[in-house]
Amino acid sequence: MLGGIEAGGTKFVCGVGSGPSDLETAQFPTTSPGETIDKVIGFFRRYSVSALGIASFGPVDLDPSSPSYGHITSTPKPEWGGFDLLGEVKRALRVPARLDTDVNGAILGEARWGAARGLQDAVYITIGTGIGGGALVGGRVVHGLVHPEMGHLRFPHDVRDSFPGICPYHGDCFEGLASGPALEQRWGKPARELPADHPAWPLEARYIALGLANLAFALSPRRFLLGGGVMQQPHLFAMIREEFARILAGYVRHRDILDGLDEYIQRPQLDYPGVLGALVLAEHAADIGSAQGSHA
Amino acid sequence: MLGGIEAGGTKFVCGVGSGPSDLETAQFPTTSPGETIDKVIGFFRRYSVSALGIASFGPVDLDPSSPSYGHITSTPKPEWGGFDLLGEVKRALRVPARLDTDVNGAILGEARWGAARGLQDAVYITIGTGIGGGALVGGRVVHGLVHPEMGHLRFPHDVRDSFPGICPYHGDCFEGLASGPALEQRWGKPARELPADHPAWPLEARYIALGLANLAFALSPRRFLLGGGVMQQPHLFAMIREEFARILAGYVRHRDILDGLDEYIQRPQLDYPGVLGALVLAEHAADIGSAQGSHA
Repeated sequence: MLGGIEAGGTKFVCGVGSGPSDLETAQFPTTSPGETIDKVIGFFRRYSVSALGIASFGPVDLDPSSPSYGHITSTPKPEWGGFDLLGEVKRALRVPARLDTDVNGAILGEARWGAARGLQDAVYITIGTGIGGGALVGGRVVHGLVHPEMGHLRFPHDVRDSFPGICPYHGDCFEGLASGPALEQRWGKPARELPADHPAWPLEARYIALGLANLAFALSPRRFLLGGGVMQQPHLFAMIREEFARILAGYVRHRDILDGLDEYIQRPQLDYPGVLGALVLAEHAADIGSAQGSHA
Repeated sequence: MLGGIEAGGTKFVCGVGSGPSDLETAQFPTTSPGETIDKVIGFFRRYSVSALGIASFGPVDLDPSSPSYGHITSTPKPEWGGFDLLGEVKRALRVPARLDTDVNGAILGEARWGAARGLQDAVYITIGTGIGGGALVGGRVVHGLVHPEMGHLRFPHDVRDSFPGICPYHGDCFEGLASGPALEQRWGKPARELPADHPAWPLEARYIALGLANLAFALSPRRFLLGGGVMQQPHLFAMIREEFARILAGYVRHRDILDGLDEYIQRPQLDYPGVLGALVLAEHAADIGSAQGSHA
């Protein structure tokens, strides 16, 4: 049996199983690293998992040759900066384990069982407390030097929008302009309390569509999946598709974009994409572990 | 022996050999498709090439399942729109052949023999008559739905720059603001005639750095290579690196970015990156041809 952890800033979701049909889960609030990991370890000790995957909030160090491989790096969350998440879990449970970002986990899960099933090139974006994204290219998760930071993409700030943006690093980047906290600060109430005809939404749709356009120009994915709290507004998808078509202006001539935007930009399908993606990571860890004949 | 073609809008460069050390080349101006291809075929008939690669201007159809696979698609160049470049060359020379974009060819060549040698994740950008880019992710060229169109990335238009941009589709996208023709229209003379202390350059460096920042956030490459006519200005690299660091504002914490920008953002090294990348494509074509026992 495989185990998966979605390590989030507010909760850790743990799951065991082989896919969505037999997944058993438990959730623990994210408190101190010691307390949280104790509960996680306790959960997995009740099952005999042979390998474990972790899809974690970040930034995380994904470079196997780095001394801080598997650590949370520069998060502002108290006590979690520098925490050796992968190492702690491996030492306690003594199984092969593999770690990736939460959004890389989500696209892996959705590409195996969900709304990107069978696709080799797809992007998952979460728009909520923050904005982040994970991408598959040719069936593999994009890592590179560190990992993508799609929430910090830059695009034109609407001239009628005087809100300066809230990103402490970049001001009016994607996350600075379009995350849930940005919406709340700009309009004075949380996204879920803004009615569907509020002027917040056309602006939000435009910013999200600009982010997607930049990702389409850089990565050329076959599908975008948009999740997270802000995307719980049902009217937002149609507005984003319309803005996206307007921004591309017919330049990318492919039937999936010209005529198929309902599929090209859509919702994730899985209840626990991160946990399920972590199961895919656990599979990879088990493969490597058995290939090396050790708990690598 | 392998053959490679860099198919450009103004000239076709043909080469035979196994790499930079034994490459023999010939160049033909790009006139009508029939005339140009006749010269190309004539060149390769003088050598007994076993497989051929083509790195072409675009957009091109790279989807092997498409009826227009290997065709130039929607170029404004007279007679070339819809031209079956891959098919014409394969039918005439009867060898396995493979086609990709010119910039994908360039990053393949530079990753094998040039300034990105040994890297699995790198981006090549050309800034000249147009702007385009090719990316390797995990050692493979990014294709996806079509292929990236990095020249059409959107980013903030400097508020002090009243030039509207020249892209017929998007106005002030990357290419619309920062290509050679954009520089010439904005400042009234070609880039090569603008002195190093001209106000054109800080603005140009800022736009290029914004494009690179977006690509870093989307793709997380290990290196950027910047080629093309505009990048022949020797002072421009240092200005771009400085702006890039300012835009990232310390958010991506990796020594290659914090302390290694001279390597992270640099020149291509090869005289003929596209032709050499086409040789890599020819290798792939030969592998597939021999695996299938046919001239696939």
